[in-house]
Amino acid sequence: MDEVPFRLESGQAWDLADRFGTPLYVLDEATIRSRARAYRESFKSAAPGSILSYASKANSTLAVIEILHQEGFTIDVASEGELEAALRAGVPAAECHLHGNAKSNALLDRALEEGIGKIVVDSLTEAQRLADRKSKFKNTKLLLRLNPSVQPETHEKISTGHEDTKFGLSILEGSAEQALKLMIRAGLPIVGLHGHVGSQLLDPEAQVDAAIRMAEFGTAMAEKIGFAFQILNLGGGLGVAYAGDPQPLSIAEYCRQLVGAVRARVPDSIQLQQEPGRSLVADAGVTIYRVETIKEVSGVPFVSVDGGLSDNPRPALYGANYRTDWFRASNYAYVTDGPGAVSFDLDGVRTAEVYGAHCEVDHLFSNVEMPVAAAEGDLLVALSTGAYNASMASNYNRFARPATVLLRPDGPVLVQDRENWDTIFARERRIGPTG
Amino acid sequence: MDEVPFRLESGQAWDLADRFGTPLYVLDEATIRSRARAYRESFKSAAPGSILSYASKANSTLAVIEILHQEGFTIDVASEGELEAALRAGVPAAECHLHGNAKSNALLDRALEEGIGKIVVDSLTEAQRLADRKSKFKNTKLLLRLNPSVQPETHEKISTGHEDTKFGLSILEGSAEQALKLMIRAGLPIVGLHGHVGSQLLDPEAQVDAAIRMAEFGTAMAEKIGFAFQILNLGGGLGVAYAGDPQPLSIAEYCRQLVGAVRARVPDSIQLQQEPGRSLVADAGVTIYRVETIKEVSGVPFVSVDGGLSDNPRPALYGANYRTDWFRASNYAYVTDGPGAVSFDLDGVRTAEVYGAHCEVDHLFSNVEMPVAAAEGDLLVALSTGAYNASMASNYNRFARPATVLLRPDGPVLVQDRENWDTIFARERRIGPTG
Repeated sequence: MDEVPFRLESGQAWDLADRFGTPLYVLDEATIRSRARAYRESFKSAAPGSILSYASKANSTLAVIEILHQEGFTIDVASEGELEAALRAGVPAAECHLHGNAKSNALLDRALEEGIGKIVVDSLTEAQRLADRKSKFKNTKLLLRLNPSVQPETHEKISTGHEDTKFGLSILEGSAEQALKLMIRAGLPIVGLHGHVGSQLLDPEAQVDAAIRMAEFGTAMAEKIGFAFQILNLGGGLGVAYAGDPQPLSIAEYCRQLVGAVRARVPDSIQLQQEPGRSLVADAGVTIYRVETIKEVSGVPFVSVDGGLSDNPRPALYGANYRTDWFRASNYAYVTDGPGAVSFDLDGVRTAEVYGAHCEVDHLFSNVEMPVAAAEGDLLVALSTGAYNASMASNYNRFARPATVLLRPDGPVLVQDRENWDTIFARERRIGPTG
Repeated sequence: MDEVPFRLESGQAWDLADRFGTPLYVLDEATIRSRARAYRESFKSAAPGSILSYASKANSTLAVIEILHQEGFTIDVASEGELEAALRAGVPAAECHLHGNAKSNALLDRALEEGIGKIVVDSLTEAQRLADRKSKFKNTKLLLRLNPSVQPETHEKISTGHEDTKFGLSILEGSAEQALKLMIRAGLPIVGLHGHVGSQLLDPEAQVDAAIRMAEFGTAMAEKIGFAFQILNLGGGLGVAYAGDPQPLSIAEYCRQLVGAVRARVPDSIQLQQEPGRSLVADAGVTIYRVETIKEVSGVPFVSVDGGLSDNPRPALYGANYRTDWFRASNYAYVTDGPGAVSFDLDGVRTAEVYGAHCEVDHLFSNVEMPVAAAEGDLLVALSTGAYNASMASNYNRFARPATVLLRPDGPVLVQDRENWDTIFARERRIGPTG
């Protein structure tokens, strides 16, 4: 594979832990840029004039948005807060597009006022509320989100698409056509269609199916009701191989297959757009934890680290597991010989279960390779945590959210501060003694 | 039942939404105090000299800690942040006790320095690290946490106890005795035992089983190694009936059965302690959401509200469902005739599925009664959200965490501010243009 997760060498992990504390999110700038370039070279070159957007929900740390904007990505925002993040990262509103199944009137007003590039219309009533706001449009264009039931007979790996029906409008039930008519009649700048078929895709088959159906619908609507069909947004969804997951196609191969199949069936006049998130940033990030406790329970090492559910809710939310590296405090037990090749010292390894520090089960990682010589105080580094960790972090059990350090060509730079008690308690107002 | 969830009248919900915005956490002070009194009257009166502690992880808003401390509860903290919360709420450290499977040396040092009342020792190595810190002890006492495998043949409803083995030490495997010996030999003030058998308990059977086994172990250790057995902490765990859940015993009946069974088998000289969390605060809280979108999908109303996973992760984490009240903007469609009795206007009701506003499935509530006359802009109020909502909230999709309003005898008081963009982005550091 041409894409392996970024990982730290032992010395680097210890330096970062000593300097910035643990738990610590670490992002490798070179990995983000190389993934971005893989998309650009394979998608944009195969589909000239196409648009790549970064789904910023994966990691909306401002530095990440800045990097991907520098790499030529527009920014996919799914809320007013993500729009605010993009603006604070220096991205012009015109280079953002707005998703959301529950956009408030206040959010639509803000987005139009900022002159956001595109709004992806998600419901009939949203179309109506936009029509009511026609006078507020500057240069904003509209796409219509179609729901996944456009491809009801597709194979089961996207069957989660069924649950996703909160998004978009249906071709089959006619609400998509109704919404297009409403917007065209109102004179709104509706210029394209959007479909997202699911996440953690292994290959583009589902996206291709959806693209063909959307293109057929768009072409039919162009003839039938004069829909000015110019843009087809294919959504995102290319997966990442966490521990135990099958390996998805590489970005280059995925894009090659996707564009090949879509270009053969969709008119050349249609501009293609794609919005990857996880596949750009997940493998660029690691989390450094400190091992606080090692216990033997019925012959199994139970390892507790100094983070957990608050900095990575994905094991609890989705049953996700992560690959890990274990670095002994003495620096001798664990040796990495180049990417992916790992060997242990003579003491050998054991299989451990790793738990977070929260006051509930908080089972973080399973089947972790632990050096026999492991000790409390060692570092455990979880790989591929660059997506949906920092962006989903909480203060559960009043844990401070970790800092994020970006590894730049000149060295590590703090791009997101660790929380402290004053920031955590700034929102609180005591009631005081009751008389 | 003598315990019903707090709920808002329509006018009150609209007033609060207008004044403080949505989503909004609302806590009813009277409900918290009445639950606290139910514990005090039934547990402390049946077991004179016993200790009640509030498991603050359920909701560590400072005002909640203040109220429960005023009601005579000591505070159960599970991290340095929760200790910080208790101290900032004006609780003396001596009235706190500290849990945790992954206590860092820094946390032990801080707790001892503050003069925390008790530390619940969770591992052999923690016992050793406390022995190494003997000179730092002021008035802190120690309890030893035993793990749930003390009751291996108990019925399956606590089978989750198996996963909880990251906590505590084993009677059966001998590590509990080892830890006691280590601490006694070191001259540490180890005075009691702790066991928590699980959460969402319907009746005290499992807690009683655990108490008897712990008491037998403690008595045996008193004879065998001179353990100065004075305190038996029974943990917490009384459940709350969310939508679709069986109704647990009332607090009074639960405590009556628990103390009755334990007192009959455990020496009178042993002081009992209990640490409820959820059962004190869950039913005191509601969350007010605004309905942003209503869509028909295959004949089912799909409702999207202005919050979700970021303010209540429990549906996604645990498959939890919540009871709800729906308030029409026009105030006429939904009529509450006293607690629990709800009738709709002539238009009738439909069954809806409610989704959050986040950019993933984010299925919040199932089988929700929606007035046929429902419209976007209505309010949807989720009941029993006072526990594990505010304390687990995140900024996912850069959503601002909601404010918390406390309903006091004199009216509503803001006790936790809504986040704003400046507080949300305060931790960020831009990298700026790359030359």
